[in-house]
Amino acid sequence: MSQGRRRRRARDLSGGVLDFVAGNGLIDRRALLGGGLRFAGVAVAAGATAAGAEPLTDAPWSLTVGDIMPAVQTPSPFEKEVTRALSNPNGEFRTSHARTPHHRLGGTVTPNGLHFSINHGGVPNIDPAEHKLVIHGMVRQPLEFTLESLSRYPLVTRMAFVECAGNSAPMFAKEPLQTTVQMLHGLVSNAEWTGVPLSTLLDEAGIDRSAKWLVAEGADAQFLDRSVPVKKAYDDALIAIYQNGEHLMPANGYPMRLLLPGYQGNMNVKYLRRIKVIDQPAYSYFETKNYSQILPGGKTWRFHFLMEVKSFITHPSYGLSLKQPGLYAISGVAYSGTGRISKVMVSAEGGKSWGEAALQGPVHDKAFTRFVMPWRWDGQPAVLQSRAYDDGGNVQPLRAEFVAMRGEASRPVTTPLTFPNQHYNSITSWAVDSAGEIKHVYG
Amino acid sequence: MSQGRRRRRARDLSGGVLDFVAGNGLIDRRALLGGGLRFAGVAVAAGATAAGAEPLTDAPWSLTVGDIMPAVQTPSPFEKEVTRALSNPNGEFRTSHARTPHHRLGGTVTPNGLHFSINHGGVPNIDPAEHKLVIHGMVRQPLEFTLESLSRYPLVTRMAFVECAGNSAPMFAKEPLQTTVQMLHGLVSNAEWTGVPLSTLLDEAGIDRSAKWLVAEGADAQFLDRSVPVKKAYDDALIAIYQNGEHLMPANGYPMRLLLPGYQGNMNVKYLRRIKVIDQPAYSYFETKNYSQILPGGKTWRFHFLMEVKSFITHPSYGLSLKQPGLYAISGVAYSGTGRISKVMVSAEGGKSWGEAALQGPVHDKAFTRFVMPWRWDGQPAVLQSRAYDDGGNVQPLRAEFVAMRGEASRPVTTPLTFPNQHYNSITSWAVDSAGEIKHVYG
Repeated sequence: MSQGRRRRRARDLSGGVLDFVAGNGLIDRRALLGGGLRFAGVAVAAGATAAGAEPLTDAPWSLTVGDIMPAVQTPSPFEKEVTRALSNPNGEFRTSHARTPHHRLGGTVTPNGLHFSINHGGVPNIDPAEHKLVIHGMVRQPLEFTLESLSRYPLVTRMAFVECAGNSAPMFAKEPLQTTVQMLHGLVSNAEWTGVPLSTLLDEAGIDRSAKWLVAEGADAQFLDRSVPVKKAYDDALIAIYQNGEHLMPANGYPMRLLLPGYQGNMNVKYLRRIKVIDQPAYSYFETKNYSQILPGGKTWRFHFLMEVKSFITHPSYGLSLKQPGLYAISGVAYSGTGRISKVMVSAEGGKSWGEAALQGPVHDKAFTRFVMPWRWDGQPAVLQSRAYDDGGNVQPLRAEFVAMRGEASRPVTTPLTFPNQHYNSITSWAVDSAGEIKHVYG
Repeated sequence: MSQGRRRRRARDLSGGVLDFVAGNGLIDRRALLGGGLRFAGVAVAAGATAAGAEPLTDAPWSLTVGDIMPAVQTPSPFEKEVTRALSNPNGEFRTSHARTPHHRLGGTVTPNGLHFSINHGGVPNIDPAEHKLVIHGMVRQPLEFTLESLSRYPLVTRMAFVECAGNSAPMFAKEPLQTTVQMLHGLVSNAEWTGVPLSTLLDEAGIDRSAKWLVAEGADAQFLDRSVPVKKAYDDALIAIYQNGEHLMPANGYPMRLLLPGYQGNMNVKYLRRIKVIDQPAYSYFETKNYSQILPGGKTWRFHFLMEVKSFITHPSYGLSLKQPGLYAISGVAYSGTGRISKVMVSAEGGKSWGEAALQGPVHDKAFTRFVMPWRWDGQPAVLQSRAYDDGGNVQPLRAEFVAMRGEASRPVTTPLTFPNQHYNSITSWAVDSAGEIKHVYG
C-alpha cells in the first residue's frame, strides 16, 4: 500500500493536483478518475485561439480515395515491425519459438496473429474433416469426437493465459540481458478460449472414478504427450476449438487443443488426438526431462504444474525510451495460475517504496489483468518494478528471495534463446537514466 | 421463465436426465453443470473394449515434420472460407461494407481480421507519425495529440460492441430473405478496445462547461463528421488506439478512433483528426440523411443514437444444417447499448414457449454476451428464436410489436445489401425442417 511518509501533494503545470503515493513520482491511481492532469497534449501554436485551431492541414491520404477492404483484415503497413520473434525462422531440425511483442501491445487480449507458440516438430497442417479425438482407457465406452461433433456441445467461453514453463528463462542469468520484454517474457499470451468442458466428455464416456490421471496426446510429428491429474480435468479443463472468436490458429493447436488454465503451456496439448484415462502418470519426455523446476541442490520438483503469480511492466520498457520529463503511465500485465490478481504494487525507485496500481476490470480468473500507474518522471534516474498479488494469498517473489529459493544459471547466459531453468516468476526491473533510455537491471 | 405446464423429465440414451423447461426440447440450462448427457460422442466401434481403443490410426500430418511458423499467424488453409462478406470488392465509387461471419465464430471476441467495417471513401493509409488529433473550439487551450503522445496516458481497457445503425436492415423486408446470419447481422462486431478517456483530454484542454456538443471528424477522404453530446464524452467515450491488444486495423480507424460504446457505429468516428467543441449539433450529412430511424408516418427520430437491446442465434442458423436428431446447443450473441444483458430467453417453437438460456460470464457493459441453451432435436420441425433483456429493463421486441412501431420496407427487398431503414432490433427466427435444413422465417 501507499507509505504515509512519502505521500505528498504538488500541482502540475496545468493546475491539476499530483497526489504522490510513493517515491520518485508515483501518483495515486485515483488520479485516473479525472482531475485535469496535463499528460502529453501539445498546445496548438501558430494562430491558435480559444475559439479554434482552423484551418487544419489536410494530409495526402485525406485527399484521395482510400484502399479497398480485403476479406480478412491485416494490420497497417506502418505496423509491419509488430511481429512475433522467431527463434528458428528457417525451420531447422530443432524446436521453434515465436514470442509475443508485449511492448507493442495494449489491453489484455493477445491478437491471434501474435499469440506465442512453441513447436517441437513443426506445425501440422491438419484437415479437420479427418482429425479425430478419442477418449479411451479407464472408461465405460471409448468415444471419438470431431471438430464438427464438438461444435454441437454447449460451449464454455473464458479468458485464459497460456504460459510456457520456460517463459522468462533468461532471467536466471547472473547478469541482466539487455533485451526487450518480448525476448524476456514473450512466451506467455492471453486469449478468449471457447470449448467443451473436458468433464462433460469424460462423463459421457463413463470415466472410472478410481482413475487418477489422463494422458493427453497430440497429432504433431512428435505425438507430444503429457500427464494431467483427473482433478484438473474436472476443475476447469476445456477442449478448446475457438481462440478469440475464430477457430484455433494452426500453431496454437488447430483444430482442437487441451486448455488447462494456469498450468504449464506444454500441458495444454495441441492438435489433441487422444485422452487416455489411466491410474498413474505416464512419465513422458516433457514431464521428466523438460519443463521442471530445477532446484539449487540439483533436484527438481516433480509434477509441479502451476504457473505462479507474476507481472511485468510493458510500458515503458527496454527499447521504449522516454523523450522528455513529464507525466506517463506505467503499465503492464499481471496473472496467476492460482486465480485472480488481487493487486499490483509498482515502485519507481527499485523497491524502496511502492504504490498500488489501478487494475483494468473485470479481473478474470487465470488471465491477464492490465495494471496502470500514473507517474511523473522528473528526468532523474528511476528503477521501475511491478509486483503482483493473487486472491490465493500468493505474492510475486522479490528477486533476492527468488534467487535464494531457486538459484541462478551456473553458466553464462548470452542469449535470451537459452533455457537455463524453468518457472521464473520474480520481478523485472527497468532502469530509466536521465536521458530517458531504459536498461534491464536486477533491482 | 420456464412454463410449468411444459416442464417434464425424460432420460436420454445414456441415462442422463433431460429436464425440459420449454416446448419442443429445450433443456434446463443447469444441465450444463454436468450430468452425463450424451451429445455427440461416437462410440469407438471395431475391436474397442473398455480398456482402450488402440491402435489409433496415424494421420499423414503426424508422420512428417510440420510447417514453419510465420512471424504473424494466419488461420489454417482449411478455414479459407471464413472471411468477411464484401459488398464492393472491386472498390467501385460507392460505399463498401465488410460483414462479420457470425455463423463461423464462437465466443464473444470478433478477431481483428473479421471485424466488420464500412467505408464511404475507401480506407486511408495513414502514417501515424504524421497524423494528429486536434481538440479545439470551446476550450481554454486547443491541444494536439499523436498516437505516440496518447500512448503516454493511463489507458482504459474494455469490451464493447460496435454496430452499424443499418445492421439487420434486410429484416425490414416484407418476406424473409434466405441468407446467412452474416448477411443479415454482420454489421456488428465485438472487441476489446484500449484508449484514453475522452473526458481526460477535454479536461486537459479546459472545456467550456456551457458546451453541449462535439463534432468529431475523420481524416478519410470524406472527412466524415458526426455530432456527439458532451454528456456521452464524459460517460464512457474513449479515443481508442488498440483493438484486441494490437493497434487498430486499417479499416477500423487506424491510428485512432472515437469509441462511443452503445452508440451508432458511424458515430465512432475513425481516423479521428479533430474534435471541435461547439454549442449546437452540426447537422452533418450522416446524422441528417442516413442512420436515422424512419417511422411509418415518414418522420424520423432526430438524434436517436442508441443501439437497442438485441440478440440473434448463430448456431444453428441458415447454412448450418442438422445432420441427425439428438442433443445440440442453441447459441448466439446478445448485446445492448443501454448496459448489460440480464437474460436471454430461447424458444424452439416460434415463441409459444420460452426457456432461459445460460449466459457466459462475466457479462460486460455494452458488449457481446454469448448465450447457450441445450436442446434435444427430435427430428420434427422447430422454429428457433432468441429474445434479450437488459439491466435497464428493456426487452427485445417481438416482430409483430416491432413492425407495428417501425413498419416494413415499402418496396420489395431482393438483396441483403440494401438498407430500407435503420435500427432493427427485433427477433430472428430460424425454421428447422424435418430434414434438418434451416430457413429464415418471420416467427
